[in-house]
Amino acid sequence: MSKARDLEQHLERVEKQLRLCQQVSRYLTRPVQLYDALQSIVGMIAEFMQSDSCLLYLISRGELVLCAAKGGNPGAVGDVRLRLDEGLTGWVARERRLLSLSREAYHDPRFKLFRELPEDTYEAFLSAPILCRNRVLGVINLQHRPVHAHSGDEMDLLTTVGEQIGGLVAAASLDQTALERTDWAELALASRIVAQPS
Amino acid sequence: MSKARDLEQHLERVEKQLRLCQQVSRYLTRPVQLYDALQSIVGMIAEFMQSDSCLLYLISRGELVLCAAKGGNPGAVGDVRLRLDEGLTGWVARERRLLSLSREAYHDPRFKLFRELPEDTYEAFLSAPILCRNRVLGVINLQHRPVHAHSGDEMDLLTTVGEQIGGLVAAASLDQTALERTDWAELALASRIVAQPS
Repeated sequence: MSKARDLEQHLERVEKQLRLCQQVSRYLTRPVQLYDALQSIVGMIAEFMQSDSCLLYLISRGELVLCAAKGGNPGAVGDVRLRLDEGLTGWVARERRLLSLSREAYHDPRFKLFRELPEDTYEAFLSAPILCRNRVLGVINLQHRPVHAHSGDEMDLLTTVGEQIGGLVAAASLDQTALERTDWAELALASRIVAQPS
Repeated sequence: MSKARDLEQHLERVEKQLRLCQQVSRYLTRPVQLYDALQSIVGMIAEFMQSDSCLLYLISRGELVLCAAKGGNPGAVGDVRLRLDEGLTGWVARERRLLSLSREAYHDPRFKLFRELPEDTYEAFLSAPILCRNRVLGVINLQHRPVHAHSGDEMDLLTTVGEQIGGLVAAASLDQTALERTDWAELALASRIVAQPS
């Protein structure tokens, strides 16, 4: 009985992860504004991960600008800016690597204090780069107020969501004319004969 | 014991679905050629779905061109072309809807016979549009030689994979300069004040 219960709980968790991936992926298709899509996505992630905050930064002329926030101070969206050499978030953008700190994130020497964000006092920090074709378009951060050891599933999921958001943001930069006029088959077939760039 | 076994099998299936989504998503990030990414993805889908063929078409000047194939005749890639008013595939592109036929797909009045493709004799047909921001970029088809009733999971999964491929193909049309120079934060924040297009 206890084995069946463990399996049930595990199954429920994996099904929720799959649903989250599918929901994020759906925004690639929907004709919604990028801003609204990003707000919805950070809300879904924060809820799924039961985190106290989820902040999404995108690159703007060499800086990271807060573009979506769940928890914390929503008024800071568009205002909070980080240089790439600042904070844990800047480190993730530079290194293009997942970062997991289960406690005392604020004591990490890479930490940068913001007066605008209550997240400055949160213990646990999980952060993934938002990537598209090996370039960083931004960073997504999850924070838990109490100490929280991130599971492998949580790390995998934030990695995948970061990739999906990368595709979403990149696709949003194409206007309707580009989407209508591009010869998609030629784009794919041409890459069959071109040598891989280094 | 039998309940635990059912749960184990269900869990295994859901975990495989999640892994497939994560693997497809990973191609959004990797610096591989679009052509190679699409070949790998159709291979993964065919394997996961245990289908006899997986064909991926992309739009080229109002036609659908075969751009990736697993099973069937790989030599037909780049050659097989369909008008949007032809075949089951054209129907999916026009209607932008999933199509599932469990048997005798070749008897469907929308079916178009190709001499190049052995899939002409296959029973079951599952097809999803490849979409990006509400526009069709292509179609992905799964075929089983014997009769095969598609499960809800299979339909959901092909829908999600179609969306992910839409993001992948759209992102591939951006060159490195666009990826480096675009102000991603401005792109997101500007859509906060713009009214939603109808």
